[in-house]
Amino acid sequence: MAYKFAKRMNNIKASEIRELLKLTQRPEVISFAGGLPAPELFPVQEVKEVAAEVIEEQGTNALQYAPTEGYDPLREKIAKRMEKFGVNVTKNNILMLSGGQQGLDFSGKIFLDKGDVVLCESPTYLGAINAFKAYEPNFVEIPTDDNGMIIEELEKIIETTDKVKLIYVIPDFQNPSGRTWSVERRKKLVEVANKHDIVIVEDNPYGELRFEGELPPAIKHFDTEGRVVYLGSFSKTFCPGFRLGWACADEKLLNKYILVKQGADLQTNTTAQMILNKFLDKYDLDEHIEKIKEVYKKRRDLMINTMKEAFPKEVKFTYPEGGLFTWAILPEHINARKLAEKAIENNVAFVPGGSFFPNGGNENTMRLNYSNMTEDRIVEGIKRLGKAIKEMM
Amino acid sequence: MAYKFAKRMNNIKASEIRELLKLTQRPEVISFAGGLPAPELFPVQEVKEVAAEVIEEQGTNALQYAPTEGYDPLREKIAKRMEKFGVNVTKNNILMLSGGQQGLDFSGKIFLDKGDVVLCESPTYLGAINAFKAYEPNFVEIPTDDNGMIIEELEKIIETTDKVKLIYVIPDFQNPSGRTWSVERRKKLVEVANKHDIVIVEDNPYGELRFEGELPPAIKHFDTEGRVVYLGSFSKTFCPGFRLGWACADEKLLNKYILVKQGADLQTNTTAQMILNKFLDKYDLDEHIEKIKEVYKKRRDLMINTMKEAFPKEVKFTYPEGGLFTWAILPEHINARKLAEKAIENNVAFVPGGSFFPNGGNENTMRLNYSNMTEDRIVEGIKRLGKAIKEMM
Repeated sequence: MAYKFAKRMNNIKASEIRELLKLTQRPEVISFAGGLPAPELFPVQEVKEVAAEVIEEQGTNALQYAPTEGYDPLREKIAKRMEKFGVNVTKNNILMLSGGQQGLDFSGKIFLDKGDVVLCESPTYLGAINAFKAYEPNFVEIPTDDNGMIIEELEKIIETTDKVKLIYVIPDFQNPSGRTWSVERRKKLVEVANKHDIVIVEDNPYGELRFEGELPPAIKHFDTEGRVVYLGSFSKTFCPGFRLGWACADEKLLNKYILVKQGADLQTNTTAQMILNKFLDKYDLDEHIEKIKEVYKKRRDLMINTMKEAFPKEVKFTYPEGGLFTWAILPEHINARKLAEKAIENNVAFVPGGSFFPNGGNENTMRLNYSNMTEDRIVEGIKRLGKAIKEMM
Repeated sequence: MAYKFAKRMNNIKASEIRELLKLTQRPEVISFAGGLPAPELFPVQEVKEVAAEVIEEQGTNALQYAPTEGYDPLREKIAKRMEKFGVNVTKNNILMLSGGQQGLDFSGKIFLDKGDVVLCESPTYLGAINAFKAYEPNFVEIPTDDNGMIIEELEKIIETTDKVKLIYVIPDFQNPSGRTWSVERRKKLVEVANKHDIVIVEDNPYGELRFEGELPPAIKHFDTEGRVVYLGSFSKTFCPGFRLGWACADEKLLNKYILVKQGADLQTNTTAQMILNKFLDKYDLDEHIEKIKEVYKKRRDLMINTMKEAFPKEVKFTYPEGGLFTWAILPEHINARKLAEKAIENNVAFVPGGSFFPNGGNENTMRLNYSNMTEDRIVEGIKRLGKAIKEMM
């Protein structure tokens, strides 16, 4: 039959990354495409042990329905962990989510009417574009540099744009660019949002994976009016399979997220929340994060150093101080989608950067993930990519 | 600050049930309010054992990102289980969801533009009303009797109503009424939907909990055109804390659900899917369901029999052949919300039925859950309720 879908469905297309990830299942493919954490660092034995203890101790409670807000002891621990980012909150400011991605969907649902405008970094996270698109907004991309959004450009655009509802940013080791906002820009962003009465969604799945330098305060740290919604995730610091993230916001606003959560999926997996909570009781997550950082830093160094050697000097790329990704800009005449096709023939995968620009263009860019491949594969893969690029120069 | 929410947020209110459930946390309260399964029947030791095996055997795979569609071995088993309901499908027709509730949210997102019409049973599931409301439809309630929607009324309404997009039904042991559709009505519903080109969402979280009589074919069984989306759940047959449900639909349509799932939360918890899959390998879920049915049947009998004795004869109630709920209709002058206030003073809780009518009214109705309370509490609670009703007669 010919289905009559809602109009919003015209906007919703398959994520290029997830389609590409299917191709990269073949073991011979060296994949810089996904945003997968290194599985060899997952605390498998600890989770196994803790899972048994939780089910033993909590019994039926671990398997029953539970409040939409989330498991209180875990919410308390997350509230406490927010201090790291200079954010002082209580469990009443924390809603457990089925992964940080869910917070993007909810933010769209709560704030966006058709035709409203989302201001975002250029480029920005593809998954956020896809989540927001369900609510039929327009996207306006704000130019960025190595310190984040260029605030003067942001102000100019706000002053000449109607219906701006949300500013969406990933200030730490941005996906896809790997860049991090300066403290000054974070502060200024909140000032601009205050002045123009706009809500900020701060997405921070990678912030704790900082290899060097100081952890900067979150944008939420500068929020005095309750206009910043902070989205966090355990996917990169614990494991993604559990689908555990959170929203942190002023109670009045968080209540809307809770209401929307009720309608969307009632609550996040009870057992998974209790296992993570017990893991945090028994083990030192920060110590575990140190191990992750050590491995990822090595991989970043290796990727960047190999790129310096193997890529033509015309190719520019970012130097991420943490997180999972670097971002490369090819000479303008090289189409990264064509390069990706060529690369996959040589069993190397990456995500063409064009997908990260909601309004298109920038087809000469590429996102490269360094967290998921072992070191020898990073070297080999980057060399093959370098060769493919040279053939297209 | 004064937030400028999307217009849809005007429709989204706190679920009365979940707010009520908070009050019923006190151990002295005899609660017929929630839709909670009996926790003493959860296979706690089996889950503990299977969880350890899954993490041991699958290792890092159990904790990593996985395909949006779900874990293939589990999808295959669910496809196979659909045969019970007379539905012949493969894993390619199954999408794993974070609970059946998520399928309601997605159905709204995929089909409903503002002002579109959802036809539903009168009364219907409150959680579906809340999920759909995010997409700003109008609801038209179709009169029902003990055999389901009255098809002649449905046709009349379709012929005089614009923009009908969805028919939403719970044909087995309906929440809240406890009633079940006849086979004839199921068949006719599909014929009417075919004739008028409308999609049907068939929500079936309780169907396997049939205490007597034959399992009727699903509405999906009669679907020859791919217009029925079937939503299933393991919350009532395994455990709700895992948040595992599924959508079953023709591939072309299921692809839209998969796309929407990507944007909403990427995928359902990997570990939970693998644990359930292993449980299905090692244990006989149908045998487990037999145990649940035995207990619930006793509780239903006890509740119904006590109602016969303790309620004034003017109160009518349904006789559910399975599932979790019965539904009572009080004399018109008795307001069930007032009765609920009076009842909670006597430490008994139920859900006033008015909430289950999207367009309001019917304040003299009540939903009573019998699955979650032990037998002595059912008797005591119904007696107290009977006394409270008599005082309001």
